[in-house]
Amino acid sequence: MATTYSKDEKAYLERIGNQIRELRTEADLSQEKLAFECELDRTYIGSVERGERNISVINLRKIAKALKTKVPVLLNIEE
Amino acid sequence: MATTYSKDEKAYLERIGNQIRELRTEADLSQEKLAFECELDRTYIGSVERGERNISVINLRKIAKALKTKVPVLLNIEE
Repeated sequence: MATTYSKDEKAYLERIGNQIRELRTEADLSQEKLAFECELDRTYIGSVERGERNISVINLRKIAKALKTKVPVLLNIEE
Repeated sequence: MATTYSKDEKAYLERIGNQIRELRTEADLSQEKLAFECELDRTYIGSVERGERNISVINLRKIAKALKTKVPVLLNIEE
């Protein structure tokens, strides 16, 4: 991504990534398996979990569905 | 936006837009005022409220802050 974020925004994206990774591992899913369930790329899931993506609501919804949870749960983190 | 969404995804984006519009009017803010507070464009806020945008987490966070609420509240809708 060409877009740059403030340190504060980057930290927020990293907290989202950590939250998604945590929920994925709790669901006992690999990145590959989650990516398959979401119809997203495994490398994309990896970059989301590293906080490198300004993820949009459509993809958050796909990930939430695959993790059998809701979007607000993925974003239930410090802002 | 060139991207196309399924009818189901479009309806989800519209529910998000409606939720944001509702919270904005409850906060007694115009689109212009909200846009100013968020440092986003008024036309962008308008398109979000019409469900025309696959909004990302960084912009959701800006809108939530301006509305003195949290991102999960903006997304507390049917999925």
